[in-house]
Amino acid sequence: MSGPVKPGTLWKPVPRPVPDPDLPRTVRVYEVGPRDGLQAETDVVPAATKAELCRRLLAAGAGKAGLEVTSFVPPSWIPQLADAAEVSAEVLPGASGRTVALVPNSRGLYNAMNAGYDDVAVVVSATDSFAAANLNTTARGSLETAAKVTAEANNAGRNVRGYLSMSFGDPWEGDVSAAKVATMAAELHAAGCTTVALGDTVGLGTPGQVTDVIRRTVEAGVPKTALAMHFHDTYGQGLANVLAALKSGVTEFDAAVGGLGRCPYAAGATGNLATEDLVWMLHGLGIDTGLDLTALVRTSRWLAAERGTTGPSRVLKALSAHVPEEDDQ
Amino acid sequence: MSGPVKPGTLWKPVPRPVPDPDLPRTVRVYEVGPRDGLQAETDVVPAATKAELCRRLLAAGAGKAGLEVTSFVPPSWIPQLADAAEVSAEVLPGASGRTVALVPNSRGLYNAMNAGYDDVAVVVSATDSFAAANLNTTARGSLETAAKVTAEANNAGRNVRGYLSMSFGDPWEGDVSAAKVATMAAELHAAGCTTVALGDTVGLGTPGQVTDVIRRTVEAGVPKTALAMHFHDTYGQGLANVLAALKSGVTEFDAAVGGLGRCPYAAGATGNLATEDLVWMLHGLGIDTGLDLTALVRTSRWLAAERGTTGPSRVLKALSAHVPEEDDQ
Repeated sequence: MSGPVKPGTLWKPVPRPVPDPDLPRTVRVYEVGPRDGLQAETDVVPAATKAELCRRLLAAGAGKAGLEVTSFVPPSWIPQLADAAEVSAEVLPGASGRTVALVPNSRGLYNAMNAGYDDVAVVVSATDSFAAANLNTTARGSLETAAKVTAEANNAGRNVRGYLSMSFGDPWEGDVSAAKVATMAAELHAAGCTTVALGDTVGLGTPGQVTDVIRRTVEAGVPKTALAMHFHDTYGQGLANVLAALKSGVTEFDAAVGGLGRCPYAAGATGNLATEDLVWMLHGLGIDTGLDLTALVRTSRWLAAERGTTGPSRVLKALSAHVPEEDDQ
Repeated sequence: MSGPVKPGTLWKPVPRPVPDPDLPRTVRVYEVGPRDGLQAETDVVPAATKAELCRRLLAAGAGKAGLEVTSFVPPSWIPQLADAAEVSAEVLPGASGRTVALVPNSRGLYNAMNAGYDDVAVVVSATDSFAAANLNTTARGSLETAAKVTAEANNAGRNVRGYLSMSFGDPWEGDVSAAKVATMAAELHAAGCTTVALGDTVGLGTPGQVTDVIRRTVEAGVPKTALAMHFHDTYGQGLANVLAALKSGVTEFDAAVGGLGRCPYAAGATGNLATEDLVWMLHGLGIDTGLDLTALVRTSRWLAAERGTTGPSRVLKALSAHVPEEDDQ
């Protein structure tokens, strides 16, 4: 028997592709970091930094599925995104890929179209409590507003993505009826949203629940190809829930680079699923995303240096030890 | 239409049980925090604190599947666990549930039996590099030592759990052959280990790989009932990998309370899968673990206060905002 091998240089980790034949070959990773991530962080990132973040994300491939750049909300609602027009003016000219802006109402839609967006997103709450706290209406009222804005956008030739928030649990009400989620998702789709993104806004969901909600939503009339899942990692369930949704045939998932965003209902907790962690799993499953994982890690690390704080992505922390820093700037 | 509901008090989050009929109804969560977790942390926790940690974990139900208390290794190898005999003398008398000690060789087995353990664990490396770095031998050499110690333990009426480290990737070699893992796991089982725990020691694995390795290991002769999975969360893949293993019929999983432990091959990275995050998913799937999630969170928070540092568990951070602190002490 030969003697012990002396370990040498550490290997640079990459996901080893071992496909699962039951899963799709290609998945769309929809990037929400600049909008959903930064709106939930406590600091206000300068417009020039946001624009550079978007440029780096597009260079890493985020425009293939879609990059949600900002939200045209009144600055009094979300001061973090008061610079929506300025950031858009920096990012959109010559942008390679699909860019999207969130619009809460007709005025937001008007501003987003003026800024040059072909794609917008609207938000509906599955619960009355979240609708009251964040949208100043009821669940039903939020759906009516979203349907009206969607019709206006469609009439103007724009594509609309519809979020259904609190689809897997609510911070005040607890459980949310899966039947209600399915019905509201179908109404949003019928109203003209080409994609309906079911949001686990507080990260409470687990894989059996994901399978159940997707099955009911498809039965209610939303095609799988029109479904996206927007998972948060607040309870660490994000990737397990993605795996369950992949097994159910869903092929579009939201994530935020570095895990940008927090949970406003639990101090210190994680919010959005980190794009790097999602891409590690998908590439490990042999699924094509069109994203460059090393470029994503460098983008996260560059932003962390600009902001003076690092997000919760596990892959960011693990890979940073193996990716040279000199190219981040 | 009624006006908006005004949100009141936040709901205390609990996993909502939505079972998946393809998954087992009961799962064993094997707690490795005091041993595998603390041996990888940089601080040395006092023996009295370790003993209290074990008592709290047993009170939370950790003894149902097993609590790995310590390791009888030479203090020069792992100074963090030099107090193995002292901690065991505090924990074992009157302990409710199964307690286990890791033993690297015959001397360790002798000391563990002297301390009163009925259950011990041995470690084998699937790669020559890790065997050289951590066990001063080859992969084959580590298997021969483990087989010898297992035979000695079995002859003395003790049960043995066998770890196969680096089963999903190696920090120096990168990929590890699934066929080799399956063969070595079968040899370890044939040598007398009642449980073989496949270790993703650096957290590189993804769900397709997990499915593949389990299938090959079962084909090589290890019954599913004798398999356990030891996942690390270094790349955030821990729970997705557990879900894949559950679908493959595995019913025992290792975890460390609070996510104790780090990754020695990537500065700042996460190590062991956090028990709280695992239990959230399992209870959300309607799977019985016999563990009290709130007691686990309180145990983690108590230990974090003792050590002055908090682990990476997502559930710990999210639930801490909802669980009163007054009962931690």
